[in-house]
Amino acid sequence: MLSVGRISLCRSFQAPSTRPVLAAVARAFSSSAQSTATGSMPIALSPAQPPLTSTSHPHVHRSAAFARLDPAVHLPELTQLVGGPAGVAPQDAMDFHNTDWQGRYRGASSLALLPSTPQQVAAVLKYCSDHQLAVVPQGGNTGLVGGSVPVFDEIVVSTARMNKIRSFNAVTGVLECDAGCVLETLDNYLLPRNHTMPWDLGAKGSCHIGGNVATNAGGLRLLRYGSLHGSILGLEVALTDGSILDTMSSLRKDNTGYDLKQLFIGSEGTLGVITGVSVLTAAKPKSVHVLYIGCESFATVQTIFSEAKQRLGEILSACEFQDAPSLNLVLQYIPNTRNPLSASHPFYVLIETSGSNETHDLEKLDSFVEFLYDNKISSDAVASQDISQVKAIWQLRENVASAMKRQGEVWKYDLSLPISQMYPLVEELRTRLPREPGVLAVGYGHLGDGNVHINVVAPTRSESVHNAIEPFIYEWTQKHRGSVSAEHGLGFTKAHCIGYSKPPRAISLMHNIRSLFDPKGILNPYKVLPHD
Amino acid sequence: MLSVGRISLCRSFQAPSTRPVLAAVARAFSSSAQSTATGSMPIALSPAQPPLTSTSHPHVHRSAAFARLDPAVHLPELTQLVGGPAGVAPQDAMDFHNTDWQGRYRGASSLALLPSTPQQVAAVLKYCSDHQLAVVPQGGNTGLVGGSVPVFDEIVVSTARMNKIRSFNAVTGVLECDAGCVLETLDNYLLPRNHTMPWDLGAKGSCHIGGNVATNAGGLRLLRYGSLHGSILGLEVALTDGSILDTMSSLRKDNTGYDLKQLFIGSEGTLGVITGVSVLTAAKPKSVHVLYIGCESFATVQTIFSEAKQRLGEILSACEFQDAPSLNLVLQYIPNTRNPLSASHPFYVLIETSGSNETHDLEKLDSFVEFLYDNKISSDAVASQDISQVKAIWQLRENVASAMKRQGEVWKYDLSLPISQMYPLVEELRTRLPREPGVLAVGYGHLGDGNVHINVVAPTRSESVHNAIEPFIYEWTQKHRGSVSAEHGLGFTKAHCIGYSKPPRAISLMHNIRSLFDPKGILNPYKVLPHD
Ligand SMILES: Cc1cc2nc3c(=O)[nH]c(=O)nc-3n(C[C@H](O)[C@H](O)[C@H](O)COP(=O)(O)OP(=O)(O)OC[C@H]3O[C@@H](n4cnc5c(N)ncnc54)[C@H](O)[C@@H]3O)c2cc1C
Ligand SMILES: Cc1cc2nc3c(=O)[nH]c(=O)nc-3n(C[C@H](O)[C@H](O)[C@H](O)COP(=O)(O)OP(=O)(O)OC[C@H]3O[C@@H](n4cnc5c(N)ncnc54)[C@H](O)[C@@H]3O)c2cc1C
Repeated sequence: MLSVGRISLCRSFQAPSTRPVLAAVARAFSSSAQSTATGSMPIALSPAQPPLTSTSHPHVHRSAAFARLDPAVHLPELTQLVGGPAGVAPQDAMDFHNTDWQGRYRGASSLALLPSTPQQVAAVLKYCSDHQLAVVPQGGNTGLVGGSVPVFDEIVVSTARMNKIRSFNAVTGVLECDAGCVLETLDNYLLPRNHTMPWDLGAKGSCHIGGNVATNAGGLRLLRYGSLHGSILGLEVALTDGSILDTMSSLRKDNTGYDLKQLFIGSEGTLGVITGVSVLTAAKPKSVHVLYIGCESFATVQTIFSEAKQRLGEILSACEFQDAPSLNLVLQYIPNTRNPLSASHPFYVLIETSGSNETHDLEKLDSFVEFLYDNKISSDAVASQDISQVKAIWQLRENVASAMKRQGEVWKYDLSLPISQMYPLVEELRTRLPREPGVLAVGYGHLGDGNVHINVVAPTRSESVHNAIEPFIYEWTQKHRGSVSAEHGLGFTKAHCIGYSKPPRAISLMHNIRSLFDPKGILNPYKVLPHD
Repeated sequence: MLSVGRISLCRSFQAPSTRPVLAAVARAFSSSAQSTATGSMPIALSPAQPPLTSTSHPHVHRSAAFARLDPAVHLPELTQLVGGPAGVAPQDAMDFHNTDWQGRYRGASSLALLPSTPQQVAAVLKYCSDHQLAVVPQGGNTGLVGGSVPVFDEIVVSTARMNKIRSFNAVTGVLECDAGCVLETLDNYLLPRNHTMPWDLGAKGSCHIGGNVATNAGGLRLLRYGSLHGSILGLEVALTDGSILDTMSSLRKDNTGYDLKQLFIGSEGTLGVITGVSVLTAAKPKSVHVLYIGCESFATVQTIFSEAKQRLGEILSACEFQDAPSLNLVLQYIPNTRNPLSASHPFYVLIETSGSNETHDLEKLDSFVEFLYDNKISSDAVASQDISQVKAIWQLRENVASAMKRQGEVWKYDLSLPISQMYPLVEELRTRLPREPGVLAVGYGHLGDGNVHINVVAPTRSESVHNAIEPFIYEWTQKHRGSVSAEHGLGFTKAHCIGYSKPPRAISLMHNIRSLFDPKGILNPYKVLPHD
């Protein structure tokens, strides 16, 4: 057994002395010029307003089945249903509600409703269903596939005013809350109570728990705590017939009939509006450490993951990777970041451990790093020495998406693939891209979950770049039995891509289920499933 | 830091020298006089054949919508669909296929089909749907709520001949197999490959993985590895329209549309027949230990669980409890068992740890036991010293159900409740039971999952005992927002009890979903949902 001191084998990382960028980024998300009085709202970072979606996507047609909002008739009635004017977003907030986080899509809705109770949501849905008015459910509006904003003039129904914690049981760890609670707010509530949310994402300062459930968000802790299909214990959902489906529960086990709540996890606002969530939170780990490891090849990246699973076992809580170009973008665009290693490398692996015994965890980490060095798997690794260093290392990985946006126009792909195939795809893609200045493909992601993010950036929107990527990237994924959307969902961007990952029988059943819950088809039209 | 030797604080447990009973019980399950050539089959341990269900439940009427099997017409056609006579169970196997494990229900079916491919299953379902013939899907027939056997003359469709492992990836831990694989067979396959199944149950020697999925089985490892909703990655399901829904996948993350497979997890054979399963298996723990702790009160039982969560953290893999009467029944009826503690106690807690580092795990256990002793929480505990002792301790808990069956007529309840309410219910129930010799109520179960099993035994079937328990036990559970079926499902026994745990809107949606998948209602009629 090695002594604890041996962790010094791996150099310690000195964080920059300035305030952690992570907090700054979270702040940038939550204190926006566009924010309304209704809660924490994200800012769309692109300076220029995107074109209307109806202009940029002329092949998508507004369905003639939907009525147009009649301000004289519908508006007073809907205002009453949401309890008066406080339930209607001010006009100057409509840019926020119409535009997605990436700044790629812009709807032309003139109405965003901010109901404050599940009953109000249900009443609004029934009204809209009866009057054939299309609706977009919206949480924190941080979704990455254009699912959370109107395509045309759909009415936005936002959960921003439903943000109360209903109960927390410190013995069982079960939290019940409104769907509009911001993820980070929930985590901040839990931490002093010795618990933590079982998922975490870069958008935590703005995204709502209802949006997380609706997108079946994956994020940074899935390796340890599993998917939302396991940790969500119950949901409360408003349906288009005006009823409220109450499956709220604080029970870990309940086999009384079909597990209906599962259908809403990942339904992206097409089956109902989630108004309440019951979640099994995790015990707050007593000891958290992060390693950042330089690697000379993607083969090494894979070896490190296999060895980490074996050697760190039950304390391994995340295993992420990023390539050199993705780190370089972060270093270039995100203030107060630096490469903590002694040199640059083609790849980097981030390993996090979370355990209940500091001494034991350090011993495991120590012998893991020793193993990497002794076997010449890597010769350059740093370990966090305190929680601020944990955060500083994490942002090298977490800020890739934000950094890319500053570089230009971004094409984002979020794929599940056999691990061995993840990087060969990036390399093949590079050979296809036009050899033009500023055109760059990067690969990074949740190695431990088999989930790679491939982003391509170019100075401006470009047909030739687009055609070099699609449909190639989807066909390649299909060939390797992967998923064309590992965690972001299908939304508007990928509604027509589902066939690459799901067989026709599954898609036809999804249409049937959608019709069952929403016979008029008013919920999030043009999204998730193929339409014409 | 304590030395490893300190584990001796807690006395070591000497197992009886004879062959472990666990293996004997598993054998009893799998080598039955009634077993056919089609695989491992359980034996119904009750000596006398139960009455026909149609006799014992005269208020349940055979639906006139179903055709009766015409041996001249249907039999040759169905035989052809399953590939010839090998696909039809011999007549002397019909007792097995008609009778449930508990020996409480007996159907009058004259036909059990043993298809060998998913295509055959789909063809059979389409045929039966077209000809209005009712069907019961059957796995290992170990279910405890009468769901796996015909109520009247339904045709049994068994997965017993579909028992091939399709693939296993030792890097990702993903196993793909036929639905008829026996759980224990799969675990035995995985162990030498450094992996293990993420669930385990007393019926492992006989139950099929398809049956586990169809019942959303909980079992002994849920605390550590979570529910099947998280660990099942994909399913292949034959539907009544003759199609095969293929969601088989080896991906941990896939957000392309609704997660349809979730609907089948816990659907108890009412939506389709599961023919293939893809599961994320767990790394085989390098170090497994069991503590058995005597407790003077149920308050102490709860304290031990809270402390174990805090102090054993990520290595805690099971936390079970049983009361004195339940242990006494095991000691009385199950050969080669003995109480390993120095005295009898009102309650016993079984704690299992599974970790990757023996030294670390022993240190954690050592300081946990020291804490219990120092704080006078318990003064009587034993720790397993090797794997045979792990098994010997486990059977004290695992064999309660089998022991009860030998004592007489058993009423079984499988409830989820807030932990503090678990035992007060047992105590209140005891005050209601007739004070007659041989009438006994016991409580035991999966403490860590909030799941208590309450069993009442009486020398013979008795109205007065029955009426003392029901509906009291269900109403009590409803009042405490519990579940009237934590893990066993609803089946035939509890099809009319769903309303105690689910609201009317949920039940009506379940009916809708059932009709969507099975418009003719041929799949497992009279089960799961209320019928008339
Ligand atoms: C910087 C950044 C990092 C991210 N990192 C990750 C990551 O690591 N992993 C990951 O999985 N995702 C990630 N995402 C995307 C992720 O989908 C969202 O951040 C989040 O889960 C969406 O929550 P939201 O409240 O913002 O939902 P929105 O964006 O408002 O909505 C998303 C979808 O859900 C629907 N919806 C929202 N609320 C409800 C409701 N109450 N009922 C029904 N439908 C509803 C909407 O209609 C829409 O289709 C990231 C996004 C950003 C901007
Ligand atoms: C000794 C003992 C201990 C047990 N311990 C536990 C425990 O700890 N936890 C727990 O949760 N359960 C436990 N059980 C009950 C549990 O439900 C079953 O043991 C097991 O999950 C059922 O599997 P099976 O293959 O025997 O299914 P069966 O009994 O054959 O069927 C059960 C139900 O599933 C349906 N079904 C079966 N196969 C399929 C299929 N391929 N497709 C569609 N539907 C299908 C049937 O129609 C029926 O409704 C125990 C049972 C016994 C006898």
